[in-house]
Amino acid sequence: MKVNLSGSNIPENLLKAGQSLKRVYDFEEAKGLTREFLGGKGIGLAEMTAIGLNVPPGFIITTSTCIEFFKAGGSFPKGLWEEVIEHIRRLEKKTCKQFGYPENPLLVSVRSGAPVSMPGMMDTILNLGMNDNVAEGMVKLTQNPRFVYDAYRRLITMFADVVMGLDRRKFDAIYDEAKEKESVKADTELSEKALRWVVEEQKKLYLKEIGKAFPVDPFEQLRLAIIAVFNSWNTPRAKTYRSIENIPEEMGTACNVQMMVFGNMGWDSGSGVMFTRNPSTGEKALYGELLFNAQGEDVVAGLRTPISLEDLKKENPRLHQELSDVANKLEKYYRDLQDIEFTIERGTLYVLQTRSGKRTAKASVKIAVDMVKEGLIEDWEAVLRVDPKQLELLLHKTVDPEAEKKVLAVGLPASPGAAIGRVVFVPKEAEEWKRKGEKVILVRPETTPEDIGGMVAAEGVLTSRGGMTSHAAIVARGIGKPAVVGCEALKIDLDAEEFQVGGNLIRKGDLITIDGLTGEVILGEVPLVEPKIGGEVTELLEWADRYRRLGVWANANDENDALKAWENGAEGIGLARTERMFLGVERVALVREMIMAETAEQRRASLEKLLPMQKEDFKKILKAMNGKPVQIRLLDPPLHEFMPKESEILTRIYEMEKANADKGELEELQRILVKVRRIQEANPMIGLRACRVGILYPEIYETQAKAIFEAASELKNEGFDPKPEIMVPGSITHKELSYLKPIIVKACEEVAKKYGFSVNYRYGTMIEMPRAALTADEIAREVDFFSFGTNDLTQTGLGLSRDDAQGTFLPIYLDKKILDEDPFQTLDLKGVGQLVEICVREGRKANPNLKIGICGEHGGDPKSIYFFHRAGLDYVSCSPYRIPIARLAAARIELEEAKHGSRSNA
Amino acid sequence: MKVNLSGSNIPENLLKAGQSLKRVYDFEEAKGLTREFLGGKGIGLAEMTAIGLNVPPGFIITTSTCIEFFKAGGSFPKGLWEEVIEHIRRLEKKTCKQFGYPENPLLVSVRSGAPVSMPGMMDTILNLGMNDNVAEGMVKLTQNPRFVYDAYRRLITMFADVVMGLDRRKFDAIYDEAKEKESVKADTELSEKALRWVVEEQKKLYLKEIGKAFPVDPFEQLRLAIIAVFNSWNTPRAKTYRSIENIPEEMGTACNVQMMVFGNMGWDSGSGVMFTRNPSTGEKALYGELLFNAQGEDVVAGLRTPISLEDLKKENPRLHQELSDVANKLEKYYRDLQDIEFTIERGTLYVLQTRSGKRTAKASVKIAVDMVKEGLIEDWEAVLRVDPKQLELLLHKTVDPEAEKKVLAVGLPASPGAAIGRVVFVPKEAEEWKRKGEKVILVRPETTPEDIGGMVAAEGVLTSRGGMTSHAAIVARGIGKPAVVGCEALKIDLDAEEFQVGGNLIRKGDLITIDGLTGEVILGEVPLVEPKIGGEVTELLEWADRYRRLGVWANANDENDALKAWENGAEGIGLARTERMFLGVERVALVREMIMAETAEQRRASLEKLLPMQKEDFKKILKAMNGKPVQIRLLDPPLHEFMPKESEILTRIYEMEKANADKGELEELQRILVKVRRIQEANPMIGLRACRVGILYPEIYETQAKAIFEAASELKNEGFDPKPEIMVPGSITHKELSYLKPIIVKACEEVAKKYGFSVNYRYGTMIEMPRAALTADEIAREVDFFSFGTNDLTQTGLGLSRDDAQGTFLPIYLDKKILDEDPFQTLDLKGVGQLVEICVREGRKANPNLKIGICGEHGGDPKSIYFFHRAGLDYVSCSPYRIPIARLAAARIELEEAKHGSRSNA
Repeated sequence: MKVNLSGSNIPENLLKAGQSLKRVYDFEEAKGLTREFLGGKGIGLAEMTAIGLNVPPGFIITTSTCIEFFKAGGSFPKGLWEEVIEHIRRLEKKTCKQFGYPENPLLVSVRSGAPVSMPGMMDTILNLGMNDNVAEGMVKLTQNPRFVYDAYRRLITMFADVVMGLDRRKFDAIYDEAKEKESVKADTELSEKALRWVVEEQKKLYLKEIGKAFPVDPFEQLRLAIIAVFNSWNTPRAKTYRSIENIPEEMGTACNVQMMVFGNMGWDSGSGVMFTRNPSTGEKALYGELLFNAQGEDVVAGLRTPISLEDLKKENPRLHQELSDVANKLEKYYRDLQDIEFTIERGTLYVLQTRSGKRTAKASVKIAVDMVKEGLIEDWEAVLRVDPKQLELLLHKTVDPEAEKKVLAVGLPASPGAAIGRVVFVPKEAEEWKRKGEKVILVRPETTPEDIGGMVAAEGVLTSRGGMTSHAAIVARGIGKPAVVGCEALKIDLDAEEFQVGGNLIRKGDLITIDGLTGEVILGEVPLVEPKIGGEVTELLEWADRYRRLGVWANANDENDALKAWENGAEGIGLARTERMFLGVERVALVREMIMAETAEQRRASLEKLLPMQKEDFKKILKAMNGKPVQIRLLDPPLHEFMPKESEILTRIYEMEKANADKGELEELQRILVKVRRIQEANPMIGLRACRVGILYPEIYETQAKAIFEAASELKNEGFDPKPEIMVPGSITHKELSYLKPIIVKACEEVAKKYGFSVNYRYGTMIEMPRAALTADEIAREVDFFSFGTNDLTQTGLGLSRDDAQGTFLPIYLDKKILDEDPFQTLDLKGVGQLVEICVREGRKANPNLKIGICGEHGGDPKSIYFFHRAGLDYVSCSPYRIPIARLAAARIELEEAKHGSRSNA
Repeated sequence: MKVNLSGSNIPENLLKAGQSLKRVYDFEEAKGLTREFLGGKGIGLAEMTAIGLNVPPGFIITTSTCIEFFKAGGSFPKGLWEEVIEHIRRLEKKTCKQFGYPENPLLVSVRSGAPVSMPGMMDTILNLGMNDNVAEGMVKLTQNPRFVYDAYRRLITMFADVVMGLDRRKFDAIYDEAKEKESVKADTELSEKALRWVVEEQKKLYLKEIGKAFPVDPFEQLRLAIIAVFNSWNTPRAKTYRSIENIPEEMGTACNVQMMVFGNMGWDSGSGVMFTRNPSTGEKALYGELLFNAQGEDVVAGLRTPISLEDLKKENPRLHQELSDVANKLEKYYRDLQDIEFTIERGTLYVLQTRSGKRTAKASVKIAVDMVKEGLIEDWEAVLRVDPKQLELLLHKTVDPEAEKKVLAVGLPASPGAAIGRVVFVPKEAEEWKRKGEKVILVRPETTPEDIGGMVAAEGVLTSRGGMTSHAAIVARGIGKPAVVGCEALKIDLDAEEFQVGGNLIRKGDLITIDGLTGEVILGEVPLVEPKIGGEVTELLEWADRYRRLGVWANANDENDALKAWENGAEGIGLARTERMFLGVERVALVREMIMAETAEQRRASLEKLLPMQKEDFKKILKAMNGKPVQIRLLDPPLHEFMPKESEILTRIYEMEKANADKGELEELQRILVKVRRIQEANPMIGLRACRVGILYPEIYETQAKAIFEAASELKNEGFDPKPEIMVPGSITHKELSYLKPIIVKACEEVAKKYGFSVNYRYGTMIEMPRAALTADEIAREVDFFSFGTNDLTQTGLGLSRDDAQGTFLPIYLDKKILDEDPFQTLDLKGVGQLVEICVREGRKANPNLKIGICGEHGGDPKSIYFFHRAGLDYVSCSPYRIPIARLAAARIELEEAKHGSRSNA
């Protein structure tokens, strides 16, 4: 049949061939056609048929036919119906059954199948082709009237609901009424008589609702079902989904018509599901279950216990082998873990569906790596098989599996990771305890936006109400805190600040552990284990490293961080914060002395006492990263961060006054109060900080630089290869960098004089203010490298103080979709990303040798990493624990680009 | 003489003509040549000669010759010297004198003259051509040996210093020794003998220093002087200046050789200076002075009192008329106020120099306006004649001239404007008093960078030490505070916190007034007058309005501001801050009640009590601007700004505890303390503020919008034409605007229902965050107008909190030139300006009807206004007092562009 068609889905080879275009294809005819043309379900059935699997025969009405249908104003294009009938006739021949013929009736299923999976599309209609005569014929044939009339009533219900759009509940109510009348609970207990009554009543209801009888003509049933499939392409829900996902309207859906097979035709029949490998562990062994004498939905309903395929192997090795052969064939063909539905009808195995199987993070990695070793896929394909977000799940702290633990209760595992802390019920208290250095678990019946400050301060969150999408769950995942929610066993008494669970009473301040992976709430403190990278993950990451261009560095402030970074494969340290070296009792005292100093000389004296301590710190980090670059950021925070807060001092003073304390001490406190008041700031984030501090007090940067150069010199003397890089924080103009450079150069020269040789180093700056990004051309001429501080660039670019936003409006903005994503987790591409792009472009133009990295927290976020790759950065620097994620993400973007490139070349 | 030249300075007509190129031009030959070719001084002398003034004859060696000189490695190009000699010969003929000939000697001056005025260039050498023989000849001729030997010793000194680069002080020391020997003080008292001795000693010193005698050959003197002029083009100082000012290196300097004339040849000789109009008042009358029997430098030395030209008119009307004729001729020719130097030698008037005269702000305006009325210049030229910075000087508050005042002392008028306040000596105290609402004058011996916080807080600054460029002076001008510095009559006692002046003792807290225009320090409070626009200024601004495209609006928060804005010609209100309407005892109580509220309903109740008050405020402003748009900004600051500070509450609590205060009151304070702690922020500038407040508490914006619409409705009922525009502060994403829009629309509809008609309004947003600028395309689709808040855009774009920067590093950054200008005064063009440009471009592309203005403080800064014009904004909005400056600046940029356009077309 010749059709004049200009549908865009028609494969080019068909158009080129100039041959008559068909609208309907048997599964056997469809080999080599496209997913766009046949839909996802159709192509799968055709492929399985083509590789010789026993698929119940059937045919596909193409997607372009659907578009024709709409162009024709919702009616069948000329010739379509004849083509459908022709294919029904062929199906009858193939199956030796006849559509609507009671002696040996052919029943079919009708399903929609768009090229991409889409919610809102029409679901399955089963048992099509049934009517009163056919039913009686089938009863004779099967000797199983209950089976036949159950199938009949299912058809009427689905047809009324899906094809005619009636209220399904009214049809189900008849069925429920029958069960009530017979006082039975299980479907299987219902009598044949009752089922016949249900079919009659449903037909009456159908007539009443539609004004027309339920169609007895199977072809009429089929015609209406096909129309319903096509129309389901245009439901409001489907349209909305397409507009959100950018799926073209003219794609259309295919319609699949397939012979019914029944797993409930006796004990030589059955239905089951199998995975080609274990989707939980990744182990290579057939995994799944089979329920004899049952339909697929009975397996799901779980009224009888199915047999596991492991047990089947012992009980029925032949059948197990048959299933294994199917599994192997499909896995080889699709080169991925398959999730397969099958039915056995009277001893014959039919494969109904196969799809890529969902799997745990662990399985995902293992399967990808195993398949490479088996020669099934290439190493780069393995890299593309594991999503960085999945890998992330493997990198959370977990409860030590060896540890003894007393589980109090199990809730929903809402946000992965394990956390230990003291129970606190009031969010503000969580913040206060945190400030005092206590680790807490915030326990609430449920959380509200007002509680966010407390959630941020807590190690983890535990609620007694709410599900996986409750406020607590969403926020906890958003801020990366472990959470167990909806743990209804907890009886929380907020007034008494305690909760009861089982026989235990947990009071405020008691220690508990929560496990966000299992949902367990555990009494007291349980040892946690840091995630370990090893085995398949290591192999996978080594493959990833072969393909990535983007470097992966780590943020590390001390030796431990640096060792972890090295272990996880960091190629350098992109951010070593020096302010941490100003902490600790002894050091803070010196820092405060320095701040209280009135002259540069006094300041220098305190700084010089700090120098050897800093030097030791630098030595440790440089040694741990021997031979790899370490970017050391000079002092960044405002000085008042090292001083007590005004309100704290005031409280101390008043307390001491009350206690009639020593005059001298009081005066000292007063003196500190004056200084603190003098240096306190309205907006410290954008106040006297970063290199502004270094310019006002050059002796600070000078001693820091000396400590770095001395550390490097001593290491060289010890035979190491230290590679220090000096990073100036938060510049806003190139002149800051040209002003500070001579100070660094002089420090280097002085140290060189002392040790008799000089240290090589590079000089760079962090790009943290919009102006720095916008004047990158000028700045690039002063430095060897840029490092984006995207946390601060986000704060200034958006005018959002993270501290203030996260506790107040940010969650609400995310909830109301005013912001699509937390800009502190995933880079705001449109705004901050634009600054990054401008900066890279102008910086490179002015200084072609410029190295550019990023050391904000976005450095470990896959989506942001993709962006940094495209923006042309040289490396990302992230937390040592996130390095694996970054390595994988960096490789994937490269591979995806290559794939895309080769596609567009094709 | 034919010269092969490719110097870029040579006028095109000369090159085109293909004629022999000359290197030396007599003043008479130079007509029609360019300033680039002849230098500024040369072209002036040529022009004056050309219009028939009696200029001492001379010639010019061109700028391109200077470049040739350098190309030739610092030696005279071939043929130059012959050409110079030829022109000396012609000069001899013209003057009937001979160079180096004792009978009738020709003396000349040699001066450099670059095309643009440049410091670091060689100054004048006078009396060139003198030697022993010539001196004796002149003695015979003039019978005035003192005059001759004085001229001779001046030549040697200048020659040694300027031409040979010797230490001038050694030569002056000989002269001083002579005076000492004769025990005289005044130069004129020195005997002939002593002067002859000085000449001899100076010649000996010259020989000793150089190893060669002072050249007796006048031509040798001339040759060396010309070389010195050329070389002065390449001094380091001149090079630095050129690189800063972007003056091309290949410009070169000309060299002017001119016959000497002497005003000290008797009582029929003299020297003087005159202005064509009064440079102080602008009055049209010859202004200046003349000293008989004196050289120009004697006038400057002020040993004798010159006669004013006003008096000369009575005493010697003929001479006065002769001077008037010269003045008129020059003013007509140059079409501007001229500052003219002249010398009378034995009854003959010579004009030595003319240039555009410096004038006061007042004179500047008056002269420009008068010249238009006289038909001398066009109105647009008058607009270009007055610099907005000058106009600004007319707009400061001044001491009421009618007021009685007791002037305590007079210091240097370091920063204009008058200020009244209580005397405070400690900068931190100034800040505290300011917070309490007191106005203070900070009094210090001198100021240091640490005092800046206090200077910012004070109304004005008074110091007893330091000059016009002292720290206090520079900073005060920078931050726009009136200042009197270096007032040495003040005896300041910092410990006692008081100062003595004359017989008066002024203690901390006493009121004084300072006048930064006059330097007066006045006891007590003297009435000040607001600057009044009127007379010539009004005329000038009306002309300016004819030419400007950029609209000028005003920032006005209340009726008074709005009235002032209307008076000064504002075309609309670009920023009416509503938070000011939340202040005042009664209102703040309601606002605090609203903040303490726990539910939206409670908040709404407090807000509804505020509504009628706000409505009245809006009515007043809309009425004052009847028919012109008023952009009302919805609430912008964070709510905690309306609450007391934590430390204040703490102090109150402790004080009350000590005083055993009422329990209830204490509990209330504790409750407030909890709330304040809950809502206080780390960085309020970028915290929960701007439209984030409106989104979290929609009832606030809703009631504000209602108040605006009710105000407009009532005014319409009263027959007015209110034009409210609703401005949303600080958006960071277009979704904030789409979220808030329905709230405003609903408020408008509700008010419309109440009044029976609806109010037209426009909806816009402030662009204050970099992200808003960078996503202007998205935002523009949601609104009718943008208004740049460049204060905040500078804070976020640079990552500089103004409050924190101004008191700490900003002055140091300016001092060290890390920043060229205070970015809060003049827009940072490279960084923030780039954001503005991106925003305008993308915003207009997405919404061609978008109106764009700016309402930050930069709206009144001329340099920034120029930028906003070029960036394509529709209007600037500034303080009502700065409107005249903005109107003038806006017109000037338009005119300058037109001029530039016509030039490039020529």
